[in-house]
Amino acid sequence: MFITLEGPEGSGKSTVLTRMKDWLMEQGHGVVLTREPGGSRLGRTLRSILLDVSSKDLTGEAELFLYLADRAQHVSQIIRPALAEGMVVLCDRYADSTVVYQGYGRGLDTALLHRFNEVAVQGVWPDLTLLLDVSPEIGLKRAMSRNLSEGKCNAEGRFEAESLQFHHRIRDGYLAWAAVNRKRFVVVDASRNPDEVFIQARDAVQARLAQPAGA
Amino acid sequence: MFITLEGPEGSGKSTVLTRMKDWLMEQGHGVVLTREPGGSRLGRTLRSILLDVSSKDLTGEAELFLYLADRAQHVSQIIRPALAEGMVVLCDRYADSTVVYQGYGRGLDTALLHRFNEVAVQGVWPDLTLLLDVSPEIGLKRAMSRNLSEGKCNAEGRFEAESLQFHHRIRDGYLAWAAVNRKRFVVVDASRNPDEVFIQARDAVQARLAQPAGA
Repeated sequence: MFITLEGPEGSGKSTVLTRMKDWLMEQGHGVVLTREPGGSRLGRTLRSILLDVSSKDLTGEAELFLYLADRAQHVSQIIRPALAEGMVVLCDRYADSTVVYQGYGRGLDTALLHRFNEVAVQGVWPDLTLLLDVSPEIGLKRAMSRNLSEGKCNAEGRFEAESLQFHHRIRDGYLAWAAVNRKRFVVVDASRNPDEVFIQARDAVQARLAQPAGA
Repeated sequence: MFITLEGPEGSGKSTVLTRMKDWLMEQGHGVVLTREPGGSRLGRTLRSILLDVSSKDLTGEAELFLYLADRAQHVSQIIRPALAEGMVVLCDRYADSTVVYQGYGRGLDTALLHRFNEVAVQGVWPDLTLLLDVSPEIGLKRAMSRNLSEGKCNAEGRFEAESLQFHHRIRDGYLAWAAVNRKRFVVVDASRNPDEVFIQARDAVQARLAQPAGA
């Protein structure tokens, strides 16, 4: 069972992932919690390049290919072996982030991006993708107060530094892409409080676990 | 004027490039000598990952996307600006290396690789590509004696460590790809001595420079 979490900064992905891991383990599942970019050894090098504000001169195309390289290595080294061992894999961002951020966000062709993802994921698509949906106004406010509480300056990451308009394109893109892939996506209202967000996410996972494999 | 050099290890690309640069400068041209992977700041980080033998666990797909990321950044940061300044750009390996090594060499779809290259190069295709053609037996022997003279152990790089069969696929692949792109490619017999190889290469560049721009 392969579950991915998608959503903008400040949508509460990390909180849901940690609680989901605990809940799945209580249910007797082996769980691997991982993320993109950065799940593999190569990925950690690439993550530092991708999320560093000083990488401002990184072109959109170079950025795209670095995310895809990270993904291909992550699938081969971490995700596929864990699934073969019967683990539940929980992944913070995956192929959909590329379509949404580089496609809807930066204007590259979403169909072509999907083709690139097919090469990168080598057939390993999620059984379930949880989209934590929240307005940019709420999401950015949360991301900002988290950064402040961690002693960082505002708008720390490359994506957080983008315009509000960009973040609206991301939200709309996520919802459009979830509609195209409705069999795999469940949209969670992430504007609510953390307990309510987690319950929605957990219910979706529980429903998917109750389905026969491959359904 | 954008000129790329292609060919296996030991085909003598570096020697030709250095002499070509000197010759072009004598003719009054401004010249930028660069290479892939590694022409940009990002590229130098990626080059060390790609050519490091300890990156043995790098998957074919991750390798492919790292080369493409390097190329996209290289085009934007180095090649296109230099061409805009009216410089002659001499580049050691470019998009054709991806088609030949990842396609003919590692078995990925060459048409799809060309599509990926189109995204990476953003319209910046070479005016002339010199293919230094040499048999794997001669090429590897030269690469090996170069490595020994530089105090490295044999089969230093990731590609040099591949099987002889792989290197035969590379040679045949280069020749097939040059035939598909015959308007842009000139095949140079690189089994000869360095002076004769350079003269063939220089004659091809001279002929191209004599053509009207855009022809």
